[in-house]
Amino acid sequence: MARTGRRPGGEDTGGRILAAARAEFGAKGYHQATIRSIAAEAGVDPALVHHYYGSKDDLFAASIDLPLRPTDIADVLLAGGLESVGRNVATLFFSVWENPGTRDPLMAMLRGAFDNEQGAAVMREFFGSGLLGRVAPQIGGPDAELRVSLAVSHLVGVAVLRYVIGFPSLVKVPVEQLIETLSPRIQSYFTD
Amino acid sequence: MARTGRRPGGEDTGGRILAAARAEFGAKGYHQATIRSIAAEAGVDPALVHHYYGSKDDLFAASIDLPLRPTDIADVLLAGGLESVGRNVATLFFSVWENPGTRDPLMAMLRGAFDNEQGAAVMREFFGSGLLGRVAPQIGGPDAELRVSLAVSHLVGVAVLRYVIGFPSLVKVPVEQLIETLSPRIQSYFTD
Repeated sequence: MARTGRRPGGEDTGGRILAAARAEFGAKGYHQATIRSIAAEAGVDPALVHHYYGSKDDLFAASIDLPLRPTDIADVLLAGGLESVGRNVATLFFSVWENPGTRDPLMAMLRGAFDNEQGAAVMREFFGSGLLGRVAPQIGGPDAELRVSLAVSHLVGVAVLRYVIGFPSLVKVPVEQLIETLSPRIQSYFTD
Repeated sequence: MARTGRRPGGEDTGGRILAAARAEFGAKGYHQATIRSIAAEAGVDPALVHHYYGSKDDLFAASIDLPLRPTDIADVLLAGGLESVGRNVATLFFSVWENPGTRDPLMAMLRGAFDNEQGAAVMREFFGSGLLGRVAPQIGGPDAELRVSLAVSHLVGVAVLRYVIGFPSLVKVPVEQLIETLSPRIQSYFTD
């Protein structure tokens, strides 16, 4: 059978739609991305998108099913003990944000949090349940949650300025230098 | 003449439309806020909004004409010398974000930066021209711009988590404690 421009439905169609959804939600945000544009990106009929994932809301929820689990992140961060968590955090952060495969769903989550309350809830849960609950007890003290949250806020801000807004003085700097300068400030939330 | 529900055009109509635009762009973001919803918020006819400010794009540009000038901010921050800039930054940051009159336009700027390239350009210019150009030379050294930018990123992240996403562990903490915990980390970018 001759191949056409439109790929047939198949085993990996769901995965292709999901990848397209992450790319579209990440690039355009929740409101501007459409089932039609996601279908076009995936090379399938819009009806197939509905068939696989239901409504746009459902598709968004599926698309922010991130490749990184918060509890896995916590394990990686704490692997070297509290003394090296600052550098571990910064290194992991840039490794996922510099890789399009993991950046797209994170970008979708961040944009979704701005766009709608459902997206904000996803981000609260992502950090709150797995990450904060796992990491804060390792620090201890009455302000452990606040410290971890402020460390997270710093990373969120770097993501916003470097990857969303394209702030020149953060874009032009190599990742190694960013890690070098950022790590001690993240570290200070864990051990100072 | 009897007053009606719709207020007549007058001297302060432009200001009222602008205040409504800030509130609407801040609450809903660029795409969901409409000339119609802004007109309703201001209690005027949509045609009057167009008459005063032209297109939605023009109105957005006018609405992010912030009450704080970047150069004024730089003056405030540096008033006590580099040694107290961390606390000055944190104190000023929360004083503007806790006040709805100044929070609304900042929120509009932040949401606009996510929504459209024009908004991202506004935010790059806001920090880049006035603030970065004024503050970085005070620190000196080859990485002065990077340090100031990372300090800015930390504040942007706190704004995102506390005021946009409503991250519980940052929302429930009193401002004084946030200033106390945040200040040393901001300070470290200026003097460490």
